[in-house]
Amino acid sequence: MNSDSRHHVVILGGGFGGLYAAKSLRDPGIRVTLVDRRNYHLFQPLLYQVATGSLSPANIAAPLRAIFARQRNVEVLMAEVSDVDVAGRRLILSDGEIGYDTLVVAAGAGHHYFGHDEWMPIAPGLKSIEDATRIRRRVLSAFEHAEREPDPARREVWLTFVLVGGGPTGVELAGAIAEIARYTLKGNFRHIDPASARIVLLEGSDRVLPAYPPDLSAKARRALEKMGVIVCTSARVVDIQPDSVTYATNGDTERIATRTVLWAAGVKSSPLGESLAKRTGAERDRLGRLVVEPDLTLPGYPEILVIGDLAHVKDADGKPLPAVAQPAIQEGMYAARLIRNRLRGVPTPPFRYHNKGNMATIGRAAAVADLGWLRFDGVVAWLAWLFVHLLYLIGFGNRLLVLMQWGYSYITRNRAARLIVGYDDAGPGN
Amino acid sequence: MNSDSRHHVVILGGGFGGLYAAKSLRDPGIRVTLVDRRNYHLFQPLLYQVATGSLSPANIAAPLRAIFARQRNVEVLMAEVSDVDVAGRRLILSDGEIGYDTLVVAAGAGHHYFGHDEWMPIAPGLKSIEDATRIRRRVLSAFEHAEREPDPARREVWLTFVLVGGGPTGVELAGAIAEIARYTLKGNFRHIDPASARIVLLEGSDRVLPAYPPDLSAKARRALEKMGVIVCTSARVVDIQPDSVTYATNGDTERIATRTVLWAAGVKSSPLGESLAKRTGAERDRLGRLVVEPDLTLPGYPEILVIGDLAHVKDADGKPLPAVAQPAIQEGMYAARLIRNRLRGVPTPPFRYHNKGNMATIGRAAAVADLGWLRFDGVVAWLAWLFVHLLYLIGFGNRLLVLMQWGYSYITRNRAARLIVGYDDAGPGN
Repeated sequence: MNSDSRHHVVILGGGFGGLYAAKSLRDPGIRVTLVDRRNYHLFQPLLYQVATGSLSPANIAAPLRAIFARQRNVEVLMAEVSDVDVAGRRLILSDGEIGYDTLVVAAGAGHHYFGHDEWMPIAPGLKSIEDATRIRRRVLSAFEHAEREPDPARREVWLTFVLVGGGPTGVELAGAIAEIARYTLKGNFRHIDPASARIVLLEGSDRVLPAYPPDLSAKARRALEKMGVIVCTSARVVDIQPDSVTYATNGDTERIATRTVLWAAGVKSSPLGESLAKRTGAERDRLGRLVVEPDLTLPGYPEILVIGDLAHVKDADGKPLPAVAQPAIQEGMYAARLIRNRLRGVPTPPFRYHNKGNMATIGRAAAVADLGWLRFDGVVAWLAWLFVHLLYLIGFGNRLLVLMQWGYSYITRNRAARLIVGYDDAGPGN
Repeated sequence: MNSDSRHHVVILGGGFGGLYAAKSLRDPGIRVTLVDRRNYHLFQPLLYQVATGSLSPANIAAPLRAIFARQRNVEVLMAEVSDVDVAGRRLILSDGEIGYDTLVVAAGAGHHYFGHDEWMPIAPGLKSIEDATRIRRRVLSAFEHAEREPDPARREVWLTFVLVGGGPTGVELAGAIAEIARYTLKGNFRHIDPASARIVLLEGSDRVLPAYPPDLSAKARRALEKMGVIVCTSARVVDIQPDSVTYATNGDTERIATRTVLWAAGVKSSPLGESLAKRTGAERDRLGRLVVEPDLTLPGYPEILVIGDLAHVKDADGKPLPAVAQPAIQEGMYAARLIRNRLRGVPTPPFRYHNKGNMATIGRAAAVADLGWLRFDGVVAWLAWLFVHLLYLIGFGNRLLVLMQWGYSYITRNRAARLIVGYDDAGPGN
């Protein structure tokens, strides 16, 4: 938009990767444009708490313009990117274009329905605020339907919740829904007992939290079962209908009658990855992520860096890094360092991931943590999870308010944000 | 749904009137069913703060089931009411029906576009959470569009905001948008100065806050003008287009080029009022409200009471009560007393409204208050407004969180909830 002689870095995406890249490019000699179709950064690790009514969207989202109000070399552009012209070094927007000297692609990921996109409207995933309010609406509406359903068999179908995917999101959602059913909604209904709800977690591999060490997986499973969640491992979903989900397990096929299926089974890189691969000849892994050089650039295109969920980056053991916040943050900071070094003519060693550990909550005061050198669970893991997540929440106000809200929810087991808002979507019966 | 011999009171609507009626019917001998299509009670006086990004929807909404969890004689039914069968004494729901012994109709009001329903999609009103997030999206998106608009004239059009209606909602919205433009968005943009936004308030009568004494109207006008709001009184809107609003004033016609018009000009009783009038022969006033007997019953139908925005009730001077919270609350409590008295065979004197005063905020630490015996403005009025609104917020947790959020917003002039969420609607260019 404006034209000056400074090196122009365009960052595509205001998630963890893009945000930390822009924050680390605090250098008046560099002009940064951060492009996102949202006007806010979303703290995705807490999104399941919005979906289950503990937090409001504003608690976990910070306006990008506010974050960069005082970093004058950053310009935020709210726009939809449709393509990259790699030869002409410009981004094609839905309503314009923007040139770059260096491009940092941090466009993130969408849901991966493993070739069954017809499941998408039936089994919503959890990536955006709109997803979260949709899931909240679906879960709460199911209890409302059950309350009004005179037929006991059909009532049971409304009171059955199936989560597909036993990774952190699936585990956290299952735990939170169990809490809602057993505590939050206690006494709220006159014809049903919400605590009688069946919550089923289906995981394709042989244990929940497969990215964690086996002993923590076992602990997470026990914690879930103690909360009343039915955990089915080695269960591969083969069909989802508006009133059922069918899965294959040990050669057999089982069918669960349910009106509420939530998808937490996998992410797939954004459509932009496909276009970028086509234009640059870059290789993609089976999740559609772009395989990058050790310095996170695209092969043959040193001016294009790919970070976050869209990048296939290997750790020290040669395993690809998971699509979570920590790798994205570190890659964003690395990208900024590489760009600054280049402009100064200084070489940068290849990117190395420092695993600070993994954590997942299961419910009220229950969590598992794996710091590599230390594994723990229970209340201590939960407090650690709380602390780390508060630490990373962008914006002091948010942090304080979220802590207040947590404290209040914890003491009262209330979930103030359990509102059914928005208009009905394609969901079954909603 | 269940059948017992207790007197069955059905309350239609969980706004202020319905809520206070149900709460005042705490009597195990009476069975109460509260029907609402929402699962929450909405604290409407603070809705403009959601629209302008100061509060989250959950801060001003409380789940109805939670409110009545411990009042066991109340059953909450989330359902859409399509009609009333007054002869058969039953409510017709969109998916069933429900009989009543006494019916309390507190169905509220919608927007009143004075016969110009084609303005509705262009100039959204503020009655629901969805309305509030839509207005928030429209206002914030206008600044985003202005930032990207290279043409200065078109940019100015994006930076022009017009509020139709100078009642409390219009005044509060105008003040809040002025604050956003002058303080909240400061430094957020690189190509526009948000403080250059023009905020125009159009009021049809000869002063803002026409329901208040003239001296408070004058003070409110001065406070608005000090914040940069352009106040046009005796201005009657004659046309709204996606890029302009036209109004007649003193025989002339003026046109304002704008992309953002917000509607705060009037409410009209819910469509159910029309149907009820047809079936009972009840008279309606020009806003569609049902004219009730001194005991709030429909003429000839002592078992049907109408309260809140749907009821035309006169005060001691013979003037109809305004469509705000206080009359609705008092009418709800009166309805409950009447029902309890009747069952005991005790007569109830006619309804009498006790005016506890009116208050409206204009912005940061500015408000006007009229208590009848005392009028004041400025910081004191603002603190009084704060206190009264916190007092009436349902649910202790909400109160504390809202106070925290206010404190934080006040100190930092930040508006954490300024998120553009949801999908684009019929609004111009959004």
